[in-house]
Amino acid sequence: MATAENKQVVLQRYIEEAPKETDMAMGMGKIELKAPKGSAALLVKNLYLSCDPYMRGRMRDFHGSYIPPFVLSRVFFSHLLDVPIEGFGVAKVLDSDDPDFKPGDFISGLTGWEEYSLIRSTWQLRKIQPDDSVPLSYHLGLLEIAWNSSRNHEEVKVDGWSEKEGKVGGWIEIMEKLGMPGFTAYVGFYEICSPKKGEYVFVSAASGAVGQLVGQLAKLHGCYVVGSAGSSQKVDLLKNKLGFDEAFNYKEETDLDAALKRYFPEGIDIYFDNVGGAILDAALLNMRIHGRIAVCGMVSLHSISDPKGIQNLYCVVPKRIRMQGFLQSDYLDKFPQFLEHVTENFKQGKIVYIEDMNEGLETAPAAFAGLFSGKNVGKQVICVARD
Amino acid sequence: MATAENKQVVLQRYIEEAPKETDMAMGMGKIELKAPKGSAALLVKNLYLSCDPYMRGRMRDFHGSYIPPFVLSRVFFSHLLDVPIEGFGVAKVLDSDDPDFKPGDFISGLTGWEEYSLIRSTWQLRKIQPDDSVPLSYHLGLLEIAWNSSRNHEEVKVDGWSEKEGKVGGWIEIMEKLGMPGFTAYVGFYEICSPKKGEYVFVSAASGAVGQLVGQLAKLHGCYVVGSAGSSQKVDLLKNKLGFDEAFNYKEETDLDAALKRYFPEGIDIYFDNVGGAILDAALLNMRIHGRIAVCGMVSLHSISDPKGIQNLYCVVPKRIRMQGFLQSDYLDKFPQFLEHVTENFKQGKIVYIEDMNEGLETAPAAFAGLFSGKNVGKQVICVARD
Repeated sequence: MATAENKQVVLQRYIEEAPKETDMAMGMGKIELKAPKGSAALLVKNLYLSCDPYMRGRMRDFHGSYIPPFVLSRVFFSHLLDVPIEGFGVAKVLDSDDPDFKPGDFISGLTGWEEYSLIRSTWQLRKIQPDDSVPLSYHLGLLEIAWNSSRNHEEVKVDGWSEKEGKVGGWIEIMEKLGMPGFTAYVGFYEICSPKKGEYVFVSAASGAVGQLVGQLAKLHGCYVVGSAGSSQKVDLLKNKLGFDEAFNYKEETDLDAALKRYFPEGIDIYFDNVGGAILDAALLNMRIHGRIAVCGMVSLHSISDPKGIQNLYCVVPKRIRMQGFLQSDYLDKFPQFLEHVTENFKQGKIVYIEDMNEGLETAPAAFAGLFSGKNVGKQVICVARD
Repeated sequence: MATAENKQVVLQRYIEEAPKETDMAMGMGKIELKAPKGSAALLVKNLYLSCDPYMRGRMRDFHGSYIPPFVLSRVFFSHLLDVPIEGFGVAKVLDSDDPDFKPGDFISGLTGWEEYSLIRSTWQLRKIQPDDSVPLSYHLGLLEIAWNSSRNHEEVKVDGWSEKEGKVGGWIEIMEKLGMPGFTAYVGFYEICSPKKGEYVFVSAASGAVGQLVGQLAKLHGCYVVGSAGSSQKVDLLKNKLGFDEAFNYKEETDLDAALKRYFPEGIDIYFDNVGGAILDAALLNMRIHGRIAVCGMVSLHSISDPKGIQNLYCVVPKRIRMQGFLQSDYLDKFPQFLEHVTENFKQGKIVYIEDMNEGLETAPAAFAGLFSGKNVGKQVICVARD
């Protein structure tokens, strides 16, 4: 039985502020490249890892959110293996003790930030059918597939994270929400925003994994679309590659309200909110009567350590604004439509998808930290290995 | 032609904080008890005046809201008549130059805080059909009737208060929203809250004009209903007269989150928000998955001079909360159902309605100021004259 060295990304300490590269470290473990008999587990080789802002929440020593924190590496120093950071990834199965998977299968789901992982919670994985016209890494973003809801999720619910306590589910919620930017964009735009042709649409974090698709869906729907992003490079991308009508760099605006008035002299019908905070506050002031706000952003985790209240919520009354949070997992019946709509448009070149791919597991800490200074352009992915 | 002395309530100064009795003053004018030929106006005798929290907004020297300020009395000191505060009232027509009205008719609509008023904007009035089973003053609250939408509202739109600028209409909006607590309660509960039998409903400012009806409608619908109010007398009223399952005095709670957890161990399905601020923030923490928040309160005006941001808005994402502002005027097609439902239940004694009636125009400044310290119990009304 082959034993391999296994590079890992581990968390060094819990944080309060934005993550820094040095909050993480590279570790080296050993792993048997085998799924033990009776474990019902898979031994996989990780190929692509997804960097997602929500992961910051798991780096905090805070148990009141609905996302449990990562385990600090030092807690397990007596074990042979360290415990890496977890996240979504695409991987290849090397060995399987689960009859639903066999060596050579490609899967996506929650895995470790390491070269090889032993995944026991196979219920949360899905098999990817390779398709030459769609890069494997796109399954971390554009085309991430809905969870197989026929599987029994109950068994892996994490104790103490119940809906009753307002902590809304456990792992399942996290994974169902966060692994699926493409379907999140689709559900948020069509089911929550009730879009009509010709309406004025504003998207924040518009070059991000969700935002870029929202903007393109809105354009295909006949809307006027403006996006905000955090660098001139991203603004270029939005205008010249993603087909937004306008885009602006919010970091260059001293008055966000004035900026929105400039881009939306008639006001905003639909705001797709990926960020909350000051941009949401400015958007509220610029919404039109009967405007809709789809709240997608994980404002939660950010606002706990950086609490800035929303000042302009009063606008919802005179403007009759509907503001709605959502998780794509409530709309799984729309999944086949999504897949057909987006895949079809993608293959016809009417939808493009921007990835920011870093090469090598060693680049992961810096790439993850970069999310919070807006370094990435498009969906941030780490390539651990190509196959 | 009879000329009468005309007691008035005038505004002395613009305010920033909560209104005080001394911000207003009693004035004495003279008025001809006649509607001049060609004026298309009515000369009315005011009987009942409505004290509404929104009027505070018109006492501020702030032109950025959608409610223009009152005219200060001193601006017009060279005129024969001072300009009184305006508000909703029930009045008797003494003379009419409008063919739709005749002496002896009872009307409700926007009038002056004075004994007699010459009302030129008769389009905004409605005729009351006297009904012995319903006190005249109830037309300022429970049974206020929808505006006749067949009348041409355009002509009286106030310049500069356009929807385009996000200032959402002018007088019409104000009047359509604010004069109709009964219909507002009905629309907010049935159209915005999507109630289901057995759900957990929380109502703030529950003994107020809107809140008391929302709670009773929710009970009739088979919900579990808890109200918050600002005195033990109001809490008694909610529990013993209005049929709420539970009620609490929010002023006695040091931790609103803990209070809501006590009354809603299972969480809140529906929050009917009449106040915003800290109670909304606590409610957000206690909402259940797929909860709904109907935002009815004029938080706007309060938050401008006392800006406290909402901290817990992030809850809308994991809990998939729908939060919606509304004005009853968008739902006029439901008005016949409302009238039948509420009148029928009222006559059968299944709905009660609590008024706080002060006698005499002189009591108006103190009664109005009292709204902001929660002095009133039920809908605050001033009786100027009985007929």
